[in-house]
Amino acid sequence: MHLLLCPDSFKDALSAQAAARAMARGIQRAAPQAHIDLCPLADGGEGSLDALIAATGAERRIAYVHDALGRPTQAAWGWFEAERTAFIELAEASGLQTLSADERDARTTSTYGVGELFRAALEAGAAKVLLLLGGSATNDAGAGMLAALGAKLLDRHHQPLAPGGAALAELHSLDLSSLDPRLARLHVEAAVDVDNPLLGRHGASAVFGPQKGATPEHVAELDRALTHFAEITARTLGENHRALPGAGAAGGMGFAARAFFSATLKPGIELMMQQADMSHRLERADLVITGEGRLDGQSLSGKTPIGVARAAHKAGKPVIVLAGSLGEGWEACYAEGVTAAFALADGPMSLDEAVTRTTTLVEARCEGLIRLWQAAGS
Amino acid sequence: MHLLLCPDSFKDALSAQAAARAMARGIQRAAPQAHIDLCPLADGGEGSLDALIAATGAERRIAYVHDALGRPTQAAWGWFEAERTAFIELAEASGLQTLSADERDARTTSTYGVGELFRAALEAGAAKVLLLLGGSATNDAGAGMLAALGAKLLDRHHQPLAPGGAALAELHSLDLSSLDPRLARLHVEAAVDVDNPLLGRHGASAVFGPQKGATPEHVAELDRALTHFAEITARTLGENHRALPGAGAAGGMGFAARAFFSATLKPGIELMMQQADMSHRLERADLVITGEGRLDGQSLSGKTPIGVARAAHKAGKPVIVLAGSLGEGWEACYAEGVTAAFALADGPMSLDEAVTRTTTLVEARCEGLIRLWQAAGS
Repeated sequence: MHLLLCPDSFKDALSAQAAARAMARGIQRAAPQAHIDLCPLADGGEGSLDALIAATGAERRIAYVHDALGRPTQAAWGWFEAERTAFIELAEASGLQTLSADERDARTTSTYGVGELFRAALEAGAAKVLLLLGGSATNDAGAGMLAALGAKLLDRHHQPLAPGGAALAELHSLDLSSLDPRLARLHVEAAVDVDNPLLGRHGASAVFGPQKGATPEHVAELDRALTHFAEITARTLGENHRALPGAGAAGGMGFAARAFFSATLKPGIELMMQQADMSHRLERADLVITGEGRLDGQSLSGKTPIGVARAAHKAGKPVIVLAGSLGEGWEACYAEGVTAAFALADGPMSLDEAVTRTTTLVEARCEGLIRLWQAAGS
Repeated sequence: MHLLLCPDSFKDALSAQAAARAMARGIQRAAPQAHIDLCPLADGGEGSLDALIAATGAERRIAYVHDALGRPTQAAWGWFEAERTAFIELAEASGLQTLSADERDARTTSTYGVGELFRAALEAGAAKVLLLLGGSATNDAGAGMLAALGAKLLDRHHQPLAPGGAALAELHSLDLSSLDPRLARLHVEAAVDVDNPLLGRHGASAVFGPQKGATPEHVAELDRALTHFAEITARTLGENHRALPGAGAAGGMGFAARAFFSATLKPGIELMMQQADMSHRLERADLVITGEGRLDGQSLSGKTPIGVARAAHKAGKPVIVLAGSLGEGWEACYAEGVTAAFALADGPMSLDEAVTRTTTLVEARCEGLIRLWQAAGS
């Protein structure tokens, strides 16, 4: 019996790796001879870097960069030597979680640190970067990243712009001639879990600006600044990417990745599964177990269990989803290829108790499910 | 696919019958073609009469009897014409639940009403009685029942004893000559879920008296009275049953059933399964699903899911247990033949919410489990 275990994290209770290991322990109690393939996943959001590193066996490296407010900090990234691929998670350098509530400022926060992570990757000899967007504190359409990589963003006085999205209103010239030349040969794939365009009512500033500290006035100011940046970019590159679905991800980083690095934008789970070689791993599997903190009927597309279920369904393999909770409308997942879904709880309990006991609950549920699976197959 | 559904009740949330029907609905969503055999069970305790009636298709009848305090009341019993078998649940006539807290009086409560139910069964032409003990308000060692069936329990003045266990201290002669003669040909099986003897530290009065309102002084008084009754019974019958395991069940009804009716004492779940023809129903089953409110490592023997699991294991059939909660040590059930056990909860929730949603939770869990079962078998 071959089992493929590819959970996402169970929110704060259990990382994807720890969840996969707990699943494995439960399964081994029921089926000591089972072949178990651990493949922790993530949907491109927080924790995705660790999951990618765990799933591929990549090396975890540390770079000295600047955070969203320009302060020196350390950021992890992954180096997968065999494929000369770097894994870069935006939130490591420019994440919202690293700022306190009163530090959040969508106008001035910068993705400069992400550019520094790219530099580290290029110096390691990267041929490819997987860029995980999400969790950003920024709304600068990647301007900081570009500056860190050598681009010159100058105002009408030929002075470099101040950091952040608001300063893009002052952009007079965009000089890409001194961009790191290695970028031209770099293949970039970006994990993007939203369909938002760069600008307007559904754009980066309007939709995600407020959670980064933007007032309605700031939103309007930022949307104008990013519009100006998009116009100059289009003029400079001869291409217009402002309406691309996902361009508005991570404060416009989707736009920058596409416009300046010709990045492919993909749902995070698709990108993760591709990097983890899921299609081959699925071939060998008799049964797939995935999971995450909550499964419900909302926004099915971006969720790890649904991505896994779709891929497994294509491969004709059954999929069990374990979830901390099965919320309103979760049964819609059946139509996406989920064979069956179960919650972790072993009875009425508080959320606190559920979180505390997540590991043992994952073990126990997997043991029971595999016992049942074996009985059915015999 | 043949499924045998034999849950107990889920405490107050769902009767055994309703639970079996909810299971069936969930299964039908996953496997519309499945053959489903509904066999609600019980362990001899409360709700057992209804489960027996449902499992066998017996007729539910009403008898006019006297309750534990001698007040006129109605009591249900079951009549299974095909086997000329009556189902009598002690608690219907002499139950603790029918008395308010301040009415409970282990000294004077009587099983007279149970004798009246026996009369009704005999009048219907019963060849056999299944007597469900448990939930009694009484501690009279069946004296009231005997009186209702014609026995003469007289004091030294040749006067009938007052009702209740305490009055047995006055017993001078036990005259069985006017006992209903049809009792001699009646086969009685009693469902008994405790091993207690009639007398002493582990006896009926000491162990169960307090919950029926007995003070420590009453316990001592009752134990002396029942000892006296047991001595006179032994002298009258030439047999001594006071030490029989289960003699102390239901305030000494186990003793009376054995001594005066030559009853076989069996665990309730065994008796229920035998009456429900479980061995034949198991033969046809590919999978068995049972369940109850709580499954834990305590007192496994008397529990419906464990009885079912043991029988299914003997027949080589897999068993799923659904439980409102899986308590401390429930994994010990694996050794009893349980294939896998799952709780109903679909996430952290309060007991109130769990109770309110029991029906839909049972449906959803069964749907998922059968989807998984089918995937494993295909």
